[in-house]
Amino acid sequence: MPQARATAPTRGYTASKDELQRRLARIEGQVRGVSKMVAEDRYCIDVLTQIAAIEAALDKVALGLLDDHARVCVLGGEESEREQRAEEMMAAVGRLMRRG
Amino acid sequence: MPQARATAPTRGYTASKDELQRRLARIEGQVRGVSKMVAEDRYCIDVLTQIAAIEAALDKVALGLLDDHARVCVLGGEESEREQRAEEMMAAVGRLMRRG
Amino acid sequence: MPQARATAPTRGYTASKDELQRRLARIEGQVRGVSKMVAEDRYCIDVLTQIAAIEAALDKVALGLLDDHARVCVLGGEESEREQRAEEMMAAVGRLMRRG
Amino acid sequence: MPQARATAPTRGYTASKDELQRRLARIEGQVRGVSKMVAEDRYCIDVLTQIAAIEAALDKVALGLLDDHARVCVLGGEESEREQRAEEMMAAVGRLMRRG
Repeated sequence: MPQARATAPTRGYTASKDELQRRLARIEGQVRGVSKMVAEDRYCIDVLTQIAAIEAALDKVALGLLDDHARVCVLGGEESEREQRAEEMMAAVGRLMRRG
Repeated sequence: MPQARATAPTRGYTASKDELQRRLARIEGQVRGVSKMVAEDRYCIDVLTQIAAIEAALDKVALGLLDDHARVCVLGGEESEREQRAEEMMAAVGRLMRRG
Repeated sequence: MPQARATAPTRGYTASKDELQRRLARIEGQVRGVSKMVAEDRYCIDVLTQIAAIEAALDKVALGLLDDHARVCVLGGEESEREQRAEEMMAAVGRLMRRG
Repeated sequence: MPQARATAPTRGYTASKDELQRRLARIEGQVRGVSKMVAEDRYCIDVLTQIAAIEAALDKVALGLLDDHARVCVLGGEESEREQRAEEMMAAVGRLMRRG
């Protein structure tokens, strides 16, 4: 697996790497913001609203990665390779749907 | 869309159709059971536990269907067809993850 | 627990019982519809869309029940009783959030 | 709202504030780790697994906050105040269940 993953087409998200990292930096800031809210004894319902927003942002990143992976799955490589990637993808979907 | 979908390989779940229907019949019975619980004024936390169980069973059916679809996606048909199916699949994943 | 649950105020959803049962009957019909879709070899992405709709409907029922329960929690009974109900409620929320 | 929330018992999570901040610091580190994985072109399925782990950790923080809030809801304050807090809590639960 690791060596197969070293080749460019396997990554699947190279194209929008900057965008992904921008979004992750924003999410990191949101988590820091939640910590600050806790430090300041902010009302816990407001903290929960922020946490829900962070999870929504993470789901969006995850769906973007999944989409890239699905595209790579069906396009590149041989049949057996595509099949293995599809399997890995479904396991990842199960974990994200919290049923994995 | 409909005509392309009429050919056998597109279905993706033919193999375990009986099993799927057995599981759906069980889920239908669980929903009926919840209705009966409500009719009998059962404690609402027990009703909620049942609802969570039904959702877990539905997620399992959905993941099974997704898995079949992913397999068909990467195996059958031409590249453009596989790509379209991958797109449809990701939209379905988004809806199941409640972000669609 | 069971005897405490036999008294009317504990139920929490008596008021909208008919509405709840109507919604559950509709959900039961939707599950039956999914089974029919499978029998007819309908395209699996369409089946998945239906499953996501059923889960949304179940979540709505669950949130309604939780809301009634929360109201009963904070209004009726003595402090120790209210505390126990709040605990049971949070366990139910955890299960519905798939983390219980 | 703000002034009512300024008194200690309303916060609900004061007791385990350090623990909460420790967990949030860990989550922040995990998000940074995901960004690093993206920078290093790590296999996207591994990135998705990390994202699912972060969401699980966030859900745990959210459930802890909800639990504290539920306790405060049913214990402190007058009936009308408790009722309002229960309402706010259910709205937060809906957002966390992604149905809000």
